[in-house]
Amino acid sequence: MARIAIDMDDVIADALGALIHAYNNEFGSAVTLKDIDGTGLRASLPAAHHKFIEETIHTEEFFAGLSVIEGAQEVIERLGREHEIFITTAAMEVPASLRPKFHWLQEHFPFIPKLNYIFCGHKYIVAADYLVDDQPRHFKTFTGKGILFDAPHNRNISDYPRAKTWFEVEKLIYKMESESS
Amino acid sequence: MARIAIDMDDVIADALGALIHAYNNEFGSAVTLKDIDGTGLRASLPAAHHKFIEETIHTEEFFAGLSVIEGAQEVIERLGREHEIFITTAAMEVPASLRPKFHWLQEHFPFIPKLNYIFCGHKYIVAADYLVDDQPRHFKTFTGKGILFDAPHNRNISDYPRAKTWFEVEKLIYKMESESS
Repeated sequence: MARIAIDMDDVIADALGALIHAYNNEFGSAVTLKDIDGTGLRASLPAAHHKFIEETIHTEEFFAGLSVIEGAQEVIERLGREHEIFITTAAMEVPASLRPKFHWLQEHFPFIPKLNYIFCGHKYIVAADYLVDDQPRHFKTFTGKGILFDAPHNRNISDYPRAKTWFEVEKLIYKMESESS
Repeated sequence: MARIAIDMDDVIADALGALIHAYNNEFGSAVTLKDIDGTGLRASLPAAHHKFIEETIHTEEFFAGLSVIEGAQEVIERLGREHEIFITTAAMEVPASLRPKFHWLQEHFPFIPKLNYIFCGHKYIVAADYLVDDQPRHFKTFTGKGILFDAPHNRNISDYPRAKTWFEVEKLIYKMESESS
């Protein structure tokens, strides 16, 4: 049995999709995922629009309404039968997200015990075998193995095994577990 | 440099004092710390009154108004000059505490970076050298060393080094660090 730590935003919760939607709505633009490939949303926008993005994510409503990333529920439920699952989210950067993130997890991932939620800042403090995250910076000091969940902003990173979907995460963990045993 | 994880309730925040005060207020009683020595508050109360305790701690106001335990600010600030400090609180059991706990830490411990707050359930997931906690159950699976912060409910536990004050925590860590180097 391995201990698997899983990030929330852009790994199980579609924060990017919701942000692009809110942005297009506000500015009457038509930004798509393809437009921000290799750079990510913030880096693709004019500096004058960053304030809108910041204000949007610092509301309770934003996190409450996020969609679930495809395959996350099915695969994590299956992984949870053999492994210990923890949700590790850097919620301290956005304190308004604390409560909605808790309720979002209760609603969409009822099979993960709430005692397995970790709302933190740094993730190197988490003692786990795997960390599934879209932010490669968390892997640098993490003591386990990082699995990079594909996102526009991390497309040029090649230092970690990449999963484009939750089904690829499942396969990667299966393979890495076989190799380590 | 060691990594020191520190609990909140009844270690740096006087939750018990506030609960006793609220209880006495509600029921016109005069419970003191001495009355609950060796048992703790809940175990000392009639079962019919447990509901009041549960309802009280599940409000945002309760956590927002807690006093700081004597010596905690001074000693933790000093420990933080040589060591890495993390606050690890089992906040998931009381989701209403998430936001007030964040703001309470910002107010009373501004010298601890918010990225070093960990709101969790299980504490064995935290990779630290020391855990200062009043709940000995967290030490059983913790990989570092536990320091039991004295509280009425844990007075009969003798399996871990006990600190009656923050100044004793400081001395214990100093001693344990000297012995391990």
